[in-house]
Amino acid sequence: MSNLQKEDFSAWYIQTIKQADLMDYSPVRGCMIFKPDGYEIWEHIQEEFNKRFKEEGIRNAYFPMLIPESFFTKEKDHIEGFSPELPWVTEAAGEKLEERLALRPTSETMIGTAFSDWINSYRDLPYEINQWANVFRWEKKTLPFLRTSEFLWQEGHTAHEDEESARKRTMRMLTVYKEVIEELLAIPVYEGQKTPSERFAGAVDTFSVEAMMKDGKAVQAGTSHYMGTKFAEAFDIKYLNRNNEHVYAHTTSWGVSTRLIGATIMVHGDEQGLVLPPKVASRQVVLVPVGPWKKKPEIVERLEELLRDLKAQGIRAIIDDSDNSPGFKFNEWELRGVPMRIEFGPRDMENNQVMIKMRDIEGKEAVSLEGITDYVENALDEMQTRLLETARKNRQMHEYTHINTLEELKQHIEEKRAVGELPGFVLAGWDGELETEAKIKEETGFTTRNIPFHPSVEKESCIVSGKPAKHTVWLARAY
Amino acid sequence: MSNLQKEDFSAWYIQTIKQADLMDYSPVRGCMIFKPDGYEIWEHIQEEFNKRFKEEGIRNAYFPMLIPESFFTKEKDHIEGFSPELPWVTEAAGEKLEERLALRPTSETMIGTAFSDWINSYRDLPYEINQWANVFRWEKKTLPFLRTSEFLWQEGHTAHEDEESARKRTMRMLTVYKEVIEELLAIPVYEGQKTPSERFAGAVDTFSVEAMMKDGKAVQAGTSHYMGTKFAEAFDIKYLNRNNEHVYAHTTSWGVSTRLIGATIMVHGDEQGLVLPPKVASRQVVLVPVGPWKKKPEIVERLEELLRDLKAQGIRAIIDDSDNSPGFKFNEWELRGVPMRIEFGPRDMENNQVMIKMRDIEGKEAVSLEGITDYVENALDEMQTRLLETARKNRQMHEYTHINTLEELKQHIEEKRAVGELPGFVLAGWDGELETEAKIKEETGFTTRNIPFHPSVEKESCIVSGKPAKHTVWLARAY
Repeated sequence: MSNLQKEDFSAWYIQTIKQADLMDYSPVRGCMIFKPDGYEIWEHIQEEFNKRFKEEGIRNAYFPMLIPESFFTKEKDHIEGFSPELPWVTEAAGEKLEERLALRPTSETMIGTAFSDWINSYRDLPYEINQWANVFRWEKKTLPFLRTSEFLWQEGHTAHEDEESARKRTMRMLTVYKEVIEELLAIPVYEGQKTPSERFAGAVDTFSVEAMMKDGKAVQAGTSHYMGTKFAEAFDIKYLNRNNEHVYAHTTSWGVSTRLIGATIMVHGDEQGLVLPPKVASRQVVLVPVGPWKKKPEIVERLEELLRDLKAQGIRAIIDDSDNSPGFKFNEWELRGVPMRIEFGPRDMENNQVMIKMRDIEGKEAVSLEGITDYVENALDEMQTRLLETARKNRQMHEYTHINTLEELKQHIEEKRAVGELPGFVLAGWDGELETEAKIKEETGFTTRNIPFHPSVEKESCIVSGKPAKHTVWLARAY
Repeated sequence: MSNLQKEDFSAWYIQTIKQADLMDYSPVRGCMIFKPDGYEIWEHIQEEFNKRFKEEGIRNAYFPMLIPESFFTKEKDHIEGFSPELPWVTEAAGEKLEERLALRPTSETMIGTAFSDWINSYRDLPYEINQWANVFRWEKKTLPFLRTSEFLWQEGHTAHEDEESARKRTMRMLTVYKEVIEELLAIPVYEGQKTPSERFAGAVDTFSVEAMMKDGKAVQAGTSHYMGTKFAEAFDIKYLNRNNEHVYAHTTSWGVSTRLIGATIMVHGDEQGLVLPPKVASRQVVLVPVGPWKKKPEIVERLEELLRDLKAQGIRAIIDDSDNSPGFKFNEWELRGVPMRIEFGPRDMENNQVMIKMRDIEGKEAVSLEGITDYVENALDEMQTRLLETARKNRQMHEYTHINTLEELKQHIEEKRAVGELPGFVLAGWDGELETEAKIKEETGFTTRNIPFHPSVEKESCIVSGKPAKHTVWLARAY
């Protein structure tokens, strides 16, 4: 077994996603191919969110991808934030366009323009929709799934009568993100508010859920924004309120993207490769005939019967009865993160049992064929829970709350590096000044992740200035 | 009741999709907004196709949207066919690109390049994937759902060892299209082969399913292409065959798009507006309290109970207990195409019954509340079947097989127009020459739709040249 994950996490990540056949590079700079095994993780994520959105009364729609340049200029902060990353269509059908069209980096401007037409009265509110779409941000440095020039996401957009209703939606979606990311992807997250410098371009407040990868670095896993009336003012989203006055609506937006796939890999993967939470694994169980099974057709027949039973129970299972050796198959399906392997050979048949190997546990267990489907279902559920618990424990081991000065932070990073450990997430006091935040980044590479709602420790003084802390913030290196 | 549908079908179509709240125009030329009620039809279509594709062993993937110009030039016919319609990205992140990037009109070139890397041996074949994506064809004349500069579709791409296997896949997908379009959308289709001039750019053979709208015009509802080894040669998709030789794979591609939404509207809609097949209706049943219901809270309570029962049966139902009058509500939900309306008031409560109005049938029926959910389920199934039958009958009424010369065709069109009837689909003999095909179009506006596999009548001579017919073809005006 290699130590690549510990020694060179980036190399391990690239090796893992290639060996698990999740993606391929493309000839277009920074754009990747989502191969079926990678894309299916996204399909399971979509399925769960669609269910949740429906429960929230939010419906899907689809808006044009191309956004006229003039739309962006309407909200000053928005264009400033996004213009450095936009690709532009300047010609079509052999002619130069009169106005450049941007490939959407996000759709506030397009959807704001539509809301302005659609929303007339308080009876139209709240107006709540979601869009699944490809978006573009021309990134200089890219990393498969985590940072690509084209990526897939959902973006929810809502308009409300007042601040209270809009803020409620903003916070509710943050909770939905937390629940789905924890329950489906088995990734524990830190909820909190972004600092002003890390806000979405044009938002009044941005909230995020942040996850810790196995290398101690952070991934911003989802964001939810309260826009106040800023976009309503820019795009003229006015409605007739209950007092017969024309007033601006309060809007929100919130999104998660295919980076969740990257986070899932980086949180659960191990030295053997990919480890997939059962709920998003395209193959939850692989059945492998072992021993002198080729001479005994009843082995594969019995496995096919088991396959049918598992499928009938809604379990995603396959048989690998290829000519490869069992050892080759074991390795292959471990690399690909299949949660459970069931081995079955002539001796097992005699004993009316199978051997079961869970991807995240050492050793195999003999399990009776009586009631096997219930056993499998249960074992997959247990693995799902176990992965979340393991991730929580990993995370806890790399949370640091004792650091009070920038010098201590630098020393902490040095010390951890020296012994091959992770600097992780550091809880620090912050005086709320842009300059101190910038200094942390400049001198340590750590950035403010978010301001947790209920920090385990309330820090009293700023880690840089020593002044009274305005906020307690999570600091970490981030993808 | 107006006669708009008969008198001005285009005006009727636009009015219907606006009143039913399916779409909106956008400020980007030729690009439309799919509003939730329009988009949900697409979601039901996706759901059914995903089920079918999975049964066929075809998995979803996602490829970059931007295609380098050099990719297009590799297959001569392909670039010739698509270049007049391409939008181009020429700048990104403030810099001019070295090579222009096209917004994909279809992904043969991108996927062909990937297949070339991924396919090495006959053991890798067949390689079969599908992609759900937005695509772009900069159209001069656009029509919501039916012809837009950006649209949504699925594109399947497969690679095979030999012609037989590839042709089998091509024809199988045509059958899947026919089945889904008929069973889900209740639209009968004509299966057949496209003439060479109507082939997909770069294909060896193109097959299509064609549907007849209520105005007698055709919509090409789905296409399936056999590419031979043309794309394999252009993109170097070679594999080691069973005889240890490096040979080219045979490829296919096939697609349906959001035009299916437009076709559904144009096939089933009537003077009252939209009529949706129950299987794709976002609301299958609307429950409306009637009579002096506001004084009797038990009316809405009983409807809420019924709503729960219907939902438990998997039926998509809503209650409209707004302040609008029953008449307003009836009209509103008819415009929006809801298949079934259930009315319930104090007198119905006394009689333990509801009044049921099916969207496609005149008059209401009193139905006992005993076993009502089974009744509703059954009535929706019957409506689904009835819509297909009605569409078949409409279609049959406008099929003409007796026309043998171009003069007769012109006369037929004139005569039908004079009495306000539809020229419909005309079965004609064709000598297989490009010139005769062009002449039909030039002189009548009719185009060859496809060459049916089993025409009801085999035509003996060409409608233009009078020479022996090489094929019997369907002719029609087309969207």
